[in-house]
Amino acid sequence: MSEPTVQDVADWWATAVSRVEPDVIELRGRPIQELIGTTSFVGVIWLLLRGALPTDGQQRLLEAALVSSVDHGPHAPSIAIARMAVTCGIGLNGAIASGVNTLGDVHGGAGEQCMELLAEVHRRGPDLDAATAAVVAEWRDRVRYLPGFGHRFHRVDPRRDPLLGLVRESVSAGVVDGAYLRAAEAVERNLAAGRTRPVPINVDGLTAVVYGELGFAPPLARGLFVLSRSVGILAHAWEEAGQGRRNKGPMPPSVLPKFLTT
Amino acid sequence: MSEPTVQDVADWWATAVSRVEPDVIELRGRPIQELIGTTSFVGVIWLLLRGALPTDGQQRLLEAALVSSVDHGPHAPSIAIARMAVTCGIGLNGAIASGVNTLGDVHGGAGEQCMELLAEVHRRGPDLDAATAAVVAEWRDRVRYLPGFGHRFHRVDPRRDPLLGLVRESVSAGVVDGAYLRAAEAVERNLAAGRTRPVPINVDGLTAVVYGELGFAPPLARGLFVLSRSVGILAHAWEEAGQGRRNKGPMPPSVLPKFLTT
Amino acid sequence: MSEPTVQDVADWWATAVSRVEPDVIELRGRPIQELIGTTSFVGVIWLLLRGALPTDGQQRLLEAALVSSVDHGPHAPSIAIARMAVTCGIGLNGAIASGVNTLGDVHGGAGEQCMELLAEVHRRGPDLDAATAAVVAEWRDRVRYLPGFGHRFHRVDPRRDPLLGLVRESVSAGVVDGAYLRAAEAVERNLAAGRTRPVPINVDGLTAVVYGELGFAPPLARGLFVLSRSVGILAHAWEEAGQGRRNKGPMPPSVLPKFLTT
Amino acid sequence: MSEPTVQDVADWWATAVSRVEPDVIELRGRPIQELIGTTSFVGVIWLLLRGALPTDGQQRLLEAALVSSVDHGPHAPSIAIARMAVTCGIGLNGAIASGVNTLGDVHGGAGEQCMELLAEVHRRGPDLDAATAAVVAEWRDRVRYLPGFGHRFHRVDPRRDPLLGLVRESVSAGVVDGAYLRAAEAVERNLAAGRTRPVPINVDGLTAVVYGELGFAPPLARGLFVLSRSVGILAHAWEEAGQGRRNKGPMPPSVLPKFLTT
Repeated sequence: MSEPTVQDVADWWATAVSRVEPDVIELRGRPIQELIGTTSFVGVIWLLLRGALPTDGQQRLLEAALVSSVDHGPHAPSIAIARMAVTCGIGLNGAIASGVNTLGDVHGGAGEQCMELLAEVHRRGPDLDAATAAVVAEWRDRVRYLPGFGHRFHRVDPRRDPLLGLVRESVSAGVVDGAYLRAAEAVERNLAAGRTRPVPINVDGLTAVVYGELGFAPPLARGLFVLSRSVGILAHAWEEAGQGRRNKGPMPPSVLPKFLTT
Repeated sequence: MSEPTVQDVADWWATAVSRVEPDVIELRGRPIQELIGTTSFVGVIWLLLRGALPTDGQQRLLEAALVSSVDHGPHAPSIAIARMAVTCGIGLNGAIASGVNTLGDVHGGAGEQCMELLAEVHRRGPDLDAATAAVVAEWRDRVRYLPGFGHRFHRVDPRRDPLLGLVRESVSAGVVDGAYLRAAEAVERNLAAGRTRPVPINVDGLTAVVYGELGFAPPLARGLFVLSRSVGILAHAWEEAGQGRRNKGPMPPSVLPKFLTT
Repeated sequence: MSEPTVQDVADWWATAVSRVEPDVIELRGRPIQELIGTTSFVGVIWLLLRGALPTDGQQRLLEAALVSSVDHGPHAPSIAIARMAVTCGIGLNGAIASGVNTLGDVHGGAGEQCMELLAEVHRRGPDLDAATAAVVAEWRDRVRYLPGFGHRFHRVDPRRDPLLGLVRESVSAGVVDGAYLRAAEAVERNLAAGRTRPVPINVDGLTAVVYGELGFAPPLARGLFVLSRSVGILAHAWEEAGQGRRNKGPMPPSVLPKFLTT
Repeated sequence: MSEPTVQDVADWWATAVSRVEPDVIELRGRPIQELIGTTSFVGVIWLLLRGALPTDGQQRLLEAALVSSVDHGPHAPSIAIARMAVTCGIGLNGAIASGVNTLGDVHGGAGEQCMELLAEVHRRGPDLDAATAAVVAEWRDRVRYLPGFGHRFHRVDPRRDPLLGLVRESVSAGVVDGAYLRAAEAVERNLAAGRTRPVPINVDGLTAVVYGELGFAPPLARGLFVLSRSVGILAHAWEEAGQGRRNKGPMPPSVLPKFLTT
């Protein structure tokens, strides 16, 4: 074996995302000074993940998807955890990390799974209703909840109509081609047929449609959800920090005696 | 002591950030369906942290600051950690969490500290140069590095000029009042006086100026840095995931024999 | 729906692990004051996970497995990450968390997977060699690496012989019944047959044998590995903290110029 | 500047904790095969942190301290967080990390702070009561809670008497010299003088005494607490995983309607 060199170490950490040299920072080949003040934060998110800047139409869809998932209240475990964590004497970075970490297969993974579901429906087409019937039946054999459809709180997720509307507009305008949209509509039809209570698409399904239409790989549905939900996690952690509690647990001190004698 | 009630539990988790009821999601009192498609991601970041939407001028500054910190290459520990983590069989959520978690006092805290430094200079004014001389001397007694000034790689941080330019424009346009800008310029003058090698403001100092001008509390300099750097962390983790390494350590396998016989 | 009560909240957080009331702490029904000074740390690990105290023979095996995985040097990502994290200005708790978090399916999951492999061989018996041939062939179709066998550094893992010796003694003494041991030996035979370079069992496989013999469920192989590796992570983070580096990256500053011009 | 070499990289990751070469694993210079089966888990914890094995008397004290902090019920944020995290679809490694991460200055830092308090009392001696009066008065000016004394649940922490008894025995037997013990007793006297309700030493104070007597540096009080509490965190996360909830929040679903209409 030939003698290892420093170049081996450099190669081990090589990246196409950014280049940093003395007095130089480039993101995907673009000097950062050309991005600051000209490019939106969401534009740079797209740039780093995709290698080029988005069109206006692409950026508008990505903004909408990122806006839609920022927060779902303190009964969401990611939010509750960050609120508790910040009362334990760690910085906002640590509180956000403890919360973001929990966006796993169950809490943050439905978008990724729904992208796979919709891609499968699309591949089985062109008869989408028949394809959907087959795919839904197969998924139901494997999983308890169909990812991206139905919600434990909402009969109709309030984020459904505005996001669907934007995607439909984007299809009409030729920004995206509509394959994920049509698959999602076919699944909604399937889940409504013959039921008194339909199972409409939820926010995970809607963002899966957006990310799929925009050409993101399924695991990035989770990655982008992390960027979005981090905003709500930060806002809640910061509110909690201002209230001065120490070692906040899930129950208020007044309830503990009841708990303790259980 | 009176009997505890369910209301005590509800109060324990009360929040002004968001309201979630069946078929209703409000962020700071605004129905989410009115935000999706009309409000940018950065506008919603501002909304959740501040309680109202930003003006265009405020949003432009916040976009620029968030863009400026997204990435500093894989030799930054937060980035390297996320790249290693994703090869260990955890999701992007976990890789981001392991990286974000390290944005502590040393890696992610300089912005917060610099905001405090600049606020102190401002309070000691109105003679900013005299105030700066005193404040800098006092800080140097306490800390080894003055937060927000100088850089181990860059003689002049490439993010300096565009960010300073934007803040100066914003002062001229009356968007912000310029107190943090003037304090930062005074510190730069102080650190350049009589030196062959000046110590210009760096990205932490520049974002501290922006966040201070925009009225954010110092700990949010770190919180906003987390949102920004999460983008680079995600992009690097995703690139690494595509390369298929398993259990990536800091050194390539070819170097390990050299290491092992040390 | 009947009105919710505080009791619902108490029930939501009910646990059989511990009971804490004013002046009372019980672990699995045992007052803590009876455990302190009489029971070893490993005895209490067993107590909390299993509900009763171990026998001496059981404890001896668990001690040995926990000792065997504490550290594998700073090229292990979990260790390297903790060393880098502690230089970023977070506490030892945060550095350990960033490291432990990465003990996922690839880095910390082989023990759990190997327990499932060995349990499958055992179920297919009683002809273990035939069962092994079938099971190994099936696993090889699905996975690239057979969990628990072979090592990228070690031809024979130095932890193999002492752990196997202890398990064999424990089988002779009737402490455990030997089903996992026999399955592991059958897999080793299978992987050695007709090869110039055998693929002996590694530390993940060996601890899988111990945890399986002791009756732990497979996911606890990962849980116990976390407890064990946390020790090495702490020791490395503490050593690094004493060296005073700031924002330690994967490469020393002297190598960065080489990296930067790549 | 001379050309960087691979040796620079090796040196950057050099460690005295462990040595790993093909077929060799040494912990602090001891081959791991000599430790497995002969040395307890706590003995190896000591070895990795201190560089040599403990005496029996030292090990007995360390076992007792590690046993005493394993769990304090699901209203402790570290425990509640891990229980919630494991229902979100991440592994036990991730759930433990999210919990351990919160053992910060407020939740896990009291032991470290109490070691500093007691060391200060000791240094001011030899008149311990006078020294204590001065030190307590100074700390009260700076902090709201004196670290290591008093408890929000327990009038007398049930871990107090057995741990104090063990330390007193160890002083009598010459295992440790008693400086931290005498300082702690002096603080307890000070906090009881003239009060109807004394403020006895709590578990953080007691473990601070043990770790101080054993010669650990103050930050390791937190590090060792992490190792100890990880056990309870794992046991709770594992119990929760067996109950099959998904996305567990702080309140049961039955209470949410009450919360939502607040």
